[in-house]
Amino acid sequence: MVRRRKVVILGSTGSIGTSALKVARQIPERMEVVGLAAGRRVEELAAQAREYGVGHVCIADESKRAELQALVPAGTTVHAGAAGLIEMATLEGANLVLVSIVGTEGLAPALAAIQAGMDLAVASKEILVMAGEIVMREARKAGVAVLPVDSEHNAIFQCLEGNGGSGKNVARLILTASGGPFRTWEEKDLATVTVAQALAHPTWVMGPKISIDSATLFNKGLEMIEARWLFDVEMGRVDVVVHPQSIVHSMVEFVDGSVLAQMSTTDMCFPIQYAVTWPERVAGALPPLNFAKLGRLDFEEPRTEVFAALNLAREAGERCGTLPAVLNAANEVAVEAFLAGRIPFLRIADLVGEVMGGHGVVEAPSLEELLAADGEARRVAAGLV
Amino acid sequence: MVRRRKVVILGSTGSIGTSALKVARQIPERMEVVGLAAGRRVEELAAQAREYGVGHVCIADESKRAELQALVPAGTTVHAGAAGLIEMATLEGANLVLVSIVGTEGLAPALAAIQAGMDLAVASKEILVMAGEIVMREARKAGVAVLPVDSEHNAIFQCLEGNGGSGKNVARLILTASGGPFRTWEEKDLATVTVAQALAHPTWVMGPKISIDSATLFNKGLEMIEARWLFDVEMGRVDVVVHPQSIVHSMVEFVDGSVLAQMSTTDMCFPIQYAVTWPERVAGALPPLNFAKLGRLDFEEPRTEVFAALNLAREAGERCGTLPAVLNAANEVAVEAFLAGRIPFLRIADLVGEVMGGHGVVEAPSLEELLAADGEARRVAAGLV
Repeated sequence: MVRRRKVVILGSTGSIGTSALKVARQIPERMEVVGLAAGRRVEELAAQAREYGVGHVCIADESKRAELQALVPAGTTVHAGAAGLIEMATLEGANLVLVSIVGTEGLAPALAAIQAGMDLAVASKEILVMAGEIVMREARKAGVAVLPVDSEHNAIFQCLEGNGGSGKNVARLILTASGGPFRTWEEKDLATVTVAQALAHPTWVMGPKISIDSATLFNKGLEMIEARWLFDVEMGRVDVVVHPQSIVHSMVEFVDGSVLAQMSTTDMCFPIQYAVTWPERVAGALPPLNFAKLGRLDFEEPRTEVFAALNLAREAGERCGTLPAVLNAANEVAVEAFLAGRIPFLRIADLVGEVMGGHGVVEAPSLEELLAADGEARRVAAGLV
Repeated sequence: MVRRRKVVILGSTGSIGTSALKVARQIPERMEVVGLAAGRRVEELAAQAREYGVGHVCIADESKRAELQALVPAGTTVHAGAAGLIEMATLEGANLVLVSIVGTEGLAPALAAIQAGMDLAVASKEILVMAGEIVMREARKAGVAVLPVDSEHNAIFQCLEGNGGSGKNVARLILTASGGPFRTWEEKDLATVTVAQALAHPTWVMGPKISIDSATLFNKGLEMIEARWLFDVEMGRVDVVVHPQSIVHSMVEFVDGSVLAQMSTTDMCFPIQYAVTWPERVAGALPPLNFAKLGRLDFEEPRTEVFAALNLAREAGERCGTLPAVLNAANEVAVEAFLAGRIPFLRIADLVGEVMGGHGVVEAPSLEELLAADGEARRVAAGLV
C-alpha cells in the first residue's frame, strides 16, 4: 500500500517549486500535484499546469489573472491574489502544501493550510523565522506535520525519527555550514568583496538572495532560528559547525552524548522527496556515498568574530517576540542594497545589528504585529542604506 | 515512569561484565542486577555478589561450587556448571540477560533465555557468528529483543530506530573499522609482527584475543557476520570502511541513498547502558563531541589483499550453514597459536582459510551440528598448527 500525496505547490516557478515538480515526475505513484501557484510568471505556470494536468492554478499578481485564464486548458480553475493563495492552501482534496514562496506572502497561506488540516512542507524561511512560534503552536493544535525541505532541517528530522521526533531526548542540534565562499578569507579582504565573488557559492547553485546569505552566514543564522522552532529546542542548544564538504547535512546530539548525523550527496530534490514520502523512503533518490573516495570530512568552528550573522541570529532566537522578524526584514533590505552596489559586504551584518538594536521587541506577537515589525524594520533599514 | 531492568550478567568478571556492573552503579534506578555468572574466578564473583546484593550466582566450573558457597552471604542461591548457566539465563523475575561469556558456552544459555521470554543483550560474538540464524529466528518467534552491546552494532541499532528497525529500508550497513595497529604497514613487514606489536591497539584497550582479532581484522569480519544476522541483511549489503579515529561507530545507508551515522567518544559502557535503557536515553553517559576540535574524520578502503579476514568472513556469511562457526573456531585456535609464538602473524588468516576450504558445509544446521563443526574445525586447525 503506497500512500499517494496530493500536493499543492505555492511558488511553483522558483527553484524549490521546479525541483518539487521534478520529484513529482520521478515518483508519480506517490505524488500527485493538484495545485500550482506562482507570483508573476504566467507562461511558465501555465506550461506547468498543462504538463501536470493540474486542476487549480493561482497567480499572486491579480493583474495577470485574465492572461493566465487564456493560457490554461478549459476546466482549469484560476485563482489570483492573496485570497487565491489562501484558496490554494486549503484546496479540497489536497493533503500536503509545499510553501516555497519567497518573502512574507507565504505566511498567511501556511497558517490557513494548517488550520485546514493539511500537512505542511516548509521551504520558505520566513514561515519559521518570523512566525515559528505561531506556526508550530497551530500545527500541534491541528495535529498536522511540519516537514522541512531544506537539507539541514531535513537531516535533523531524519536523525530524530524514532527518537521521539522532538526535543525530548535532544541535548543539541548541530547545524553544519559549508562556510560559504569566504570561509578562509581574512576580515580585511572581506571589506572589498564584489557581488560576483559573493554569488559564487562553493557547494550549491542558488538564487542571489540565498547566495549572499550563505556568504554572510545569515542563511545559517536563519536556519538556527528555524531549527529552534521546528524541533522545539531553545536557542542555547542550537549549534553551528563549519563542514566545507557539505556531506554531513546536520547532526543531533542526544542527552546521553551519542550523536546521529545524516549524510548524502547534495541534491535539492531529496529533502522534498523525503517530505512527500515520509515516513517511508523510496529507492534510488540519491547516488550512494563512497566514504573511502570522499577520504575525509572536515569540521571547524564558525568565525563568529568575522561573520556576525550567527551571533545576531542567536540573539534574535533567544529574545524571540518580533526580533527574528526584524532580523529577517533588515537582512533582506541589506542584501538587496549590497546586490545593487549600494553598500559594501561587511555593512550587511552591521546594518542588521543596528536595526535590531533600535527595535522595541513585542512579546508573543500576533501575525499582524509580526508583519508590522517586518514593515517597520524594512523602512528603518532602507533609511540606513 | 522509569522502567527498571532486572538483569542477569553471564560472564560478570570479564571486561564487558565489569563494565555492565559499572553501568548498574551509575543508573541504579534503571538497572538492577539479579544474577551473576562467571567461569572460574570465584572470589571476584563473590565480591560482586556482595557489593550488588545479588540473589543468584553461578560458577561455570562445577568444582568451585563449594568454594563459592562459602564466600557468598547466606541466602544467596549458588548455581554451577552448564545447567547452572541455563538456570541463570531463565531466572524468574529477570527480564534481560547479558551474554558476555567468551566461547561457545554462551550459546545454550542465550537460546534458553530467549525461550524463557527474556530480552537478550549480546556481547559474545559466538552467539551471532555461529548461530545467528537460529538465535534470530527463535527471538522473532518469542517476540524478544536482541540488543547488541558492541559499539558498531549498537551504532547501527541506533541509526535504525524509527526506520523500521530491520532490513526493510536498508541498502547497506557500513561497519567502521579502526584499521588496527597495522593499518598502514606494508605486507612484507607484517610477516615479522611480534605478539607485543599486535596487542598494542590504537583505540581500544582489550583482552588479547580481541586485540589480535583487531590486528588481523578478523574482529571486523566476525562483526560483518553478526550484522548480517542481527539486522537481517544479506552479506552483500554489509560493507566495511576504515575510519582511524573511531568516532563514527558505524553507519546505515537507506534505499534512498541517505546515510545515518552514529558518533560518540569511545566508551565500552555506553552501548551496555543503551541496551539496558533502550528505547530511552539517559543523560550524561558520554562527554559531548566537539567536532571543530576533532577537526577531521578520515575514511579509507580496507586493504583486503593484505587483511584476508574480511573476504573470508564475507565468504562464510554468504555461504552460511556451518561455515561461520568453522571460521570462528579456526580463528580461535590460530590466535592462540600466534599468542604462544607457534605461528607467525600472517599465518592466522591462511590457516583459517585452509580449514574453511576443507570443510563440508552443513546447511541449516542444528545447534548440535554447529557445535560439532566447531569441534572438528578446532581439531583440524590444531593439526595445521
